[in-house]
Amino acid sequence: MSRQLHLGAFLMATGHHIAAWRHPSVPRGAGVDIAHYRALARLAEAACFDLLFIADSVAAAEGPQAARMARSDLFEPLTLLAALSGVTERIGLVATVTTSYHEPYSVARAFASLDQLSAGRAGWNLVTSDAAAEAGNFGRDSHLGHAERYVRASEFQQVVNGLWDSWADDAFVRDQASGQYYRADGVRALDHRGEHFAVRGPLNVPRSPQGRPVLVQAGASPAGLDLAARSAEVVFTAQPDLASAQAFYGDLKRRVAAAGRSPDSLKIMPGVYVTVAATAAEARTKEAELRELVDPQVGIALLGRMLGNFDLSGYPPDGPLPELPLTDSGQQSRQRLLTDLARRENLSLAQLGRRIAGGRGHLSLVGTASEVADVLQRWFEQGAADGFNLMAPLLPSGLADIVQHLVPELQRRGLFRKAYQGRTLREHLGLAQPANPHFT
Amino acid sequence: MSRQLHLGAFLMATGHHIAAWRHPSVPRGAGVDIAHYRALARLAEAACFDLLFIADSVAAAEGPQAARMARSDLFEPLTLLAALSGVTERIGLVATVTTSYHEPYSVARAFASLDQLSAGRAGWNLVTSDAAAEAGNFGRDSHLGHAERYVRASEFQQVVNGLWDSWADDAFVRDQASGQYYRADGVRALDHRGEHFAVRGPLNVPRSPQGRPVLVQAGASPAGLDLAARSAEVVFTAQPDLASAQAFYGDLKRRVAAAGRSPDSLKIMPGVYVTVAATAAEARTKEAELRELVDPQVGIALLGRMLGNFDLSGYPPDGPLPELPLTDSGQQSRQRLLTDLARRENLSLAQLGRRIAGGRGHLSLVGTASEVADVLQRWFEQGAADGFNLMAPLLPSGLADIVQHLVPELQRRGLFRKAYQGRTLREHLGLAQPANPHFT
Repeated sequence: MSRQLHLGAFLMATGHHIAAWRHPSVPRGAGVDIAHYRALARLAEAACFDLLFIADSVAAAEGPQAARMARSDLFEPLTLLAALSGVTERIGLVATVTTSYHEPYSVARAFASLDQLSAGRAGWNLVTSDAAAEAGNFGRDSHLGHAERYVRASEFQQVVNGLWDSWADDAFVRDQASGQYYRADGVRALDHRGEHFAVRGPLNVPRSPQGRPVLVQAGASPAGLDLAARSAEVVFTAQPDLASAQAFYGDLKRRVAAAGRSPDSLKIMPGVYVTVAATAAEARTKEAELRELVDPQVGIALLGRMLGNFDLSGYPPDGPLPELPLTDSGQQSRQRLLTDLARRENLSLAQLGRRIAGGRGHLSLVGTASEVADVLQRWFEQGAADGFNLMAPLLPSGLADIVQHLVPELQRRGLFRKAYQGRTLREHLGLAQPANPHFT
Repeated sequence: MSRQLHLGAFLMATGHHIAAWRHPSVPRGAGVDIAHYRALARLAEAACFDLLFIADSVAAAEGPQAARMARSDLFEPLTLLAALSGVTERIGLVATVTTSYHEPYSVARAFASLDQLSAGRAGWNLVTSDAAAEAGNFGRDSHLGHAERYVRASEFQQVVNGLWDSWADDAFVRDQASGQYYRADGVRALDHRGEHFAVRGPLNVPRSPQGRPVLVQAGASPAGLDLAARSAEVVFTAQPDLASAQAFYGDLKRRVAAAGRSPDSLKIMPGVYVTVAATAAEARTKEAELRELVDPQVGIALLGRMLGNFDLSGYPPDGPLPELPLTDSGQQSRQRLLTDLARRENLSLAQLGRRIAGGRGHLSLVGTASEVADVLQRWFEQGAADGFNLMAPLLPSGLADIVQHLVPELQRRGLFRKAYQGRTLREHLGLAQPANPHFT
């Protein structure tokens, strides 16, 4: 079979468009509606998606427009995916958890537990936290500086990996006759003592059915790329066009090789915001319908957050994007991307806010399945992506559109599976099962 | 209807007996077998239990006999109960989480999320950690001292409660037409700054369907009882006989009243280790069968742990319990209870180890449903208990015995419900829905 692309269903409660919750098709309270998420999970699994992807923030929405956004009433990702593990059988379950305000033992354990619950379908999207609102919930007045965040993240990841390797795959013999529960030579304490953490181990969960849960990352700064090159297995990224995506893809694959790994051991999956319908006109109508629902001040507030937690409410909506300092709060790469876009197209603040209200800087595609698939195929075949994390404008209807129109088109083209071949997330992604280096 | 007792199903992977895992009826790897737990949850729900109760340790088993115990391959409780929320509809879901090594924002959020997933069935068993093995996994060489643990726990609990009250019950209006998602006057930052924690809030989960998740505690020291009297809604306790249980019950209810609460707002549920069968002879055979499976050194190792993490492997198994210092590691009350038992009955180390290998100091009952129910009824009617947390020797068979024999007997006596009346854990327990003091 030819090379296959990978698809993630990036689920954001009401949908990715900032005004999605105002659309009459979206259930009210979707963020804490398990029936809603169950239906989404089943829909994505029926279409053979590789994984569900859940973003996270450890704070409620902040700022002047917070009360007009659907961002403060959400499930916690690990409990959500644990609940979904029982109503799905094959699809991968990727939860975002920050390294900035948790303990590695707890994070290693929760993902190991999810992995056991789901028989090998867990993935961890490792992020660092850059928002003051999050810092304030964990005893800090401000978030850690960018460099320190990544030093901590790197050590955190090493500890988690070490804990996941606490047990030999065959350590638990559970011999009822002799009374031996595990082999004493099948377990290893970690005894880690580093700059940020001291962790003895071993973990109190057996080794993962997939060796280790899959490690996902999204950082695009040099420190983030460096960490990804050494350790990530999937990278989620925001790329606005083919050339940028190719440059990113090539650079990261080179870094992976330079770190001594096979370039194919890391899959690059840009986020793509997709509005698809039976006809191009219908897709455009769907897009316009949502655009009408955007409150300009909400769009500008979202823009401020994406640029690095700036309050832009004092600037004229019809004026240009003001000069802003490059901060290490917010994602620097996203900040550059949006600043360039505003200058290139001479957009006002309100226009820029409305432009990002859907895809937030990710590639945004609107059209028929064939039109959308053409772009995805080009990216996939021209060195820009190994797959895509698909972002539906509305949920559930936008995902239903993707499943009804786009997925069959990708299948017809021989780019995407028609049935699951494997059982674990690692198998879906074509990632090797990592051996345990301590027990060979 | 007359006063009804409450029943918890205290699930311990393979069963409560230390040798349970060696019994041929117990599934191997039960601790990470979700099908096993699903069957248990459905069994308990069909019998109308108030709740499932999951204990926890944030470390693998330690010590010379660790490899002969089924204590190192377990699900993490919150992910486990989230998974079980989807296959149950009424039964309460109580997870143990320590205050010693977590952050209150994360704990408040995870339980709030479980509560939303389960439509109001979550409960938190608040504990402090007293084992060196746990401390070592969280950057400490030794666990916190008893007093400091409880100071931290008390502040932790206040912060969690405050976060659970972040939102008015009707804060989220989600008005699609006007664009107002929540009422700005329906949210409240916590802005807590205390000795151990600084937490801004608000929580990013709406208020609980049951006001707040139910708060369970088990501490029996003066500091633990003080915290329970102020804040607990259920207390789980180990009481070996009626007189001790009555004294404990009376003392705690007085403390609750002294704290300005109604004594009925806290339910006392002693743990009871129950071996029940159709005939007394059959029950005794079941008990003897398990006793035969106990490795004396494993029993002694368990004993050392219960007494306060002592290594007793150097003492003669047939000799007496050595004099041990009262430590603040381990549960002091448990230590006194077991020391008294050994002296009173002149038990050797091995005998004492075997004695606690099932109930670990809890009331242990063996017999027919009628015999067991007689004792429970006496405790319930004579001021010793509001209900019981039932501990089955083996799982699933021991719980199946309880459901088949004991529960119907309690129902015949009019002591226990035959059908759920309420939908939330709080309703099952007869606990009032707490109003939000900040939004009245």
